[in-house]
Amino acid sequence: MIITLTTDFGLRDAFVGTMKGVILEIAPTVQTVDLTHGIAAGDVRSGAFALMTAAPFFPSGTIHVAVIDPGVGSARRALAISTPRAVFIGPDNGLLSWAVRQENVLEIRSIENSSFFLPRVSSTFQGRDLFAPAAANLAAKGRFSELGPELGSFQRITWPEPIHLKEGWKTEIIHVDVYGNAITTFPVEPATALHSVMLAGNMRIPFARFYGAVAPGHQLAVGGSSGFLEIAVNQGHAADQLSLRVGSEVVVF
Amino acid sequence: MIITLTTDFGLRDAFVGTMKGVILEIAPTVQTVDLTHGIAAGDVRSGAFALMTAAPFFPSGTIHVAVIDPGVGSARRALAISTPRAVFIGPDNGLLSWAVRQENVLEIRSIENSSFFLPRVSSTFQGRDLFAPAAANLAAKGRFSELGPELGSFQRITWPEPIHLKEGWKTEIIHVDVYGNAITTFPVEPATALHSVMLAGNMRIPFARFYGAVAPGHQLAVGGSSGFLEIAVNQGHAADQLSLRVGSEVVVF
Amino acid sequence: MIITLTTDFGLRDAFVGTMKGVILEIAPTVQTVDLTHGIAAGDVRSGAFALMTAAPFFPSGTIHVAVIDPGVGSARRALAISTPRAVFIGPDNGLLSWAVRQENVLEIRSIENSSFFLPRVSSTFQGRDLFAPAAANLAAKGRFSELGPELGSFQRITWPEPIHLKEGWKTEIIHVDVYGNAITTFPVEPATALHSVMLAGNMRIPFARFYGAVAPGHQLAVGGSSGFLEIAVNQGHAADQLSLRVGSEVVVF
Repeated sequence: MIITLTTDFGLRDAFVGTMKGVILEIAPTVQTVDLTHGIAAGDVRSGAFALMTAAPFFPSGTIHVAVIDPGVGSARRALAISTPRAVFIGPDNGLLSWAVRQENVLEIRSIENSSFFLPRVSSTFQGRDLFAPAAANLAAKGRFSELGPELGSFQRITWPEPIHLKEGWKTEIIHVDVYGNAITTFPVEPATALHSVMLAGNMRIPFARFYGAVAPGHQLAVGGSSGFLEIAVNQGHAADQLSLRVGSEVVVF
Repeated sequence: MIITLTTDFGLRDAFVGTMKGVILEIAPTVQTVDLTHGIAAGDVRSGAFALMTAAPFFPSGTIHVAVIDPGVGSARRALAISTPRAVFIGPDNGLLSWAVRQENVLEIRSIENSSFFLPRVSSTFQGRDLFAPAAANLAAKGRFSELGPELGSFQRITWPEPIHLKEGWKTEIIHVDVYGNAITTFPVEPATALHSVMLAGNMRIPFARFYGAVAPGHQLAVGGSSGFLEIAVNQGHAADQLSLRVGSEVVVF
Repeated sequence: MIITLTTDFGLRDAFVGTMKGVILEIAPTVQTVDLTHGIAAGDVRSGAFALMTAAPFFPSGTIHVAVIDPGVGSARRALAISTPRAVFIGPDNGLLSWAVRQENVLEIRSIENSSFFLPRVSSTFQGRDLFAPAAANLAAKGRFSELGPELGSFQRITWPEPIHLKEGWKTEIIHVDVYGNAITTFPVEPATALHSVMLAGNMRIPFARFYGAVAPGHQLAVGGSSGFLEIAVNQGHAADQLSLRVGSEVVVF
């Protein structure tokens, strides 16, 4: 059984290690896998994007725990969502919503059963006291329905679908990765080679099939690994070079 | 069996990965868990704090290896301490001392049995050559007494206990975490709501039960997840905003 | 069975976590170990160095996957090299070459068997789609020869061997580690105490057996943990202090 972890805790303190101790105490045979702990503090959208892109590559039955939780300690709900392939656990602030956007949601629960928590739940580190032990107890005992009462819905973050224009499609940047590649919401097969792209100021970017297909320092639009069109610079940082950030408009032809 | 690792090695070089190779060669069924490798170079106090806060959440029998070791290669001792729940292994420079501060220390050993080491012990990377293999051999063979001669004491770092004033308690900042939360040594239950706090310059900080209980950018004193009162700013960086650093004085009312 | 991972993907996105999901889906009992993901983007030499220093400490049978791959998506080959102790998998750009420099290479294969890949191979993230699944399928099924056609050679990065001068040896800096220690290619036993060193501008550096043998802030040459002479500053950053970088010349006496 696998439990993945996605947080904004960073790796300077022992927060993440502590969550793993809690999980292994409850469920000694679980394997924990870090998706990322490098999300900027409180950046729920980036966490949602990381979870969405990574989760489909995990084995059936994986439990994904995500904790980017500016509202920790407040009345925001603790959420569990089950799909045919996975369970997602985290605060009910939209963080889980992109990962299940195209999934068949089987069941939604508000995590309230304190027998799944540590004996003491702090108001500042519920990753350790509530989310990690809830996932571990679920892995060890396997009853989703015991987590808490069923819910009819959960918080979602808007996913900006491409809009069909008279000519082309309008999309926007949803994420900038560590290399500076700027990822849109325009779905594209890896092998597609049909598009060119226009950025603000009518700047045109040619489509290419891989980074090295243009000279170093040159920009390209490419079918990215997350299944969406992305704007990149071969061996460079597209977001900096082209002043792209989350929300920047892109038109695809 | 679990071996945790706490170092100041960072994650840019392969130092940590190499230690795991050494451990798995000796003890193939051990699970290694990173507490943190992001401690500032040589910052023994921060390492001691990380170990102290994380270790209680690990299963009984865990071996904790910590290597923040400015004196590597010198005559400083290599230390092993056993408690009813855990074994702690690291240089004898105070690094292990806060983790066992309130524990019942069963046995203290100077790690000197070279059959527990790699065949060659370098003078610059004893995390790989001495501490990791000592922990792995202990996990694989299980005889604490074989590590080396028994000691009567070990190096400790002073823990600044709160001092009772005529009015209130004087404590100080012991650690600043990655979010900028400034943690004192004043013990407090997570649910306590009794205190206010005064910083240098007679600045008063109100107590609150969780970060979001004050407006974004506002400061609060809160019962932190490590069991101590901490000074925080909701969605902000308290240490920067309030010029707090390790050693800064705080009075609790 | 162990699969190690060495990349320049960083830990901010979920790239590394996704590779682990792919591996665990194919080979559920494999243990993954991170060597480092903190290599600078596209820095094939630093990746080669990390792999070379870490791999010898892993158990026999370990599969090492390294992905620092500026040419991803182009016609560069995907490479697998077997030695008596290990298998190395990565792009054919020199990345694997230092790790096998002094090994007995048994077999070299071009990884082309698409039944070892994910069903869809993107042109931007072959760590996920090709290298990780190839390693996992190899771990699960164990037939090196099925990876693809045998090759007679592979790309190598020049290793700058020390040159015998009339007096002493000329070597150069091959790597600067996270502490600023500048590592040469001059092989030296950990316990050696025979050398002094001269840098550019005729600056002389004394040899010492460990960092703390000189005063804080003072420079030394020391037999480093990678088996090579390195230039260090006790509790300081030698590369900054002495203007050393990869390629800087060092003469050893």
